Amino acid sequence: MKSQLAIALALSAVTTAALAGPIEEQIRFRQSAYSFLGWNTAKIKAQAVDHPETFNKDQVIAAANAIAAAANSGILEQLYGPGTDQGTGWKPTRLKPEYFQKQAEVKELEATFIKEANELQKVADDGDVADIKAQFGKLGASCKSCHDLIRVRE
Amino acid sequence: MKSQLAIALALSAVTTAALAGPIEEQIRFRQSAYSFLGWNTAKIKAQAVDHPETFNKDQVIAAANAIAAAANSGILEQLYGPGTDQGTGWKPTRLKPEYFQKQAEVKELEATFIKEANELQKVADDGDVADIKAQFGKLGASCKSCHDLIRVRE
Repeated sequence: MKSQLAIALALSAVTTAALAGPIEEQIRFRQSAYSFLGWNTAKIKAQAVDHPETFNKDQVIAAANAIAAAANSGILEQLYGPGTDQGTGWKPTRLKPEYFQKQAEVKELEATFIKEANELQKVADDGDVADIKAQFGKLGASCKSCHDLIRVRE
Repeated sequence: MKSQLAIALALSAVTTAALAGPIEEQIRFRQSAYSFLGWNTAKIKAQAVDHPETFNKDQVIAAANAIAAAANSGILEQLYGPGTDQGTGWKPTRLKPEYFQKQAEVKELEATFIKEANELQKVADDGDVADIKAQFGKLGASCKSCHDLIRVRE
């Protein structure tokens, strides 16, 4: 009995590690992660696309590091548990219920997003504004593909 | 006149890059950044402190990268503009008005937070659970010092 309890506790801990918590918490954390991504992508857009005269290499590197780290942080695996197509985090979720039937496409889009974010981190480090702008375009396209597939339009 | 306008526009772009936007937006972004940090610190706490039997090196590295990138992302410089001790992002801010009179202490605490986050990223990469636990304790202490100084208790 004691070892069964230990196994049950260990399994429950594993589950906790895999998914972040109750539905509302998963939604709030993913909204936070996307908002954090939005803040950092806005900095790169401002400094490498819209106003290259304000380009600040250190700030762009920091933003690209933040984007890459967030892309690789396991958002999809840990914050999109069953039932999270309904519910309110900071605000009601915009996840389409079809999300759960589109796992193959979603995984592929996630892999592209991670690849583009890692590449952006690399070109930001190199510091060539034209390269950063071009790579930022690819990252943006990968964001948009996923939004079009699984996010309700506002 | 034309060049004065260009300078004014450039300066305005620089200001935009330095502060994220209106008060409510700065508050929402910083609440998102801290929530993103909270999600990632919770993973390290679960896997290196509370349930070391669930330790997953890749997940802990990813979480430590996320924490370090967020710590270095310029939260304090870009999201704590004048007036942001009042206002609602995702929820009302808990920033104490004294924040603006305690800049020297705050900067020092931020430097410590960044140092501890960078060190956590290093020990996570090395993969020794005891080292990660010890360093996570130092990071947590640096979080707490700042909360005690500038955040209203709930």
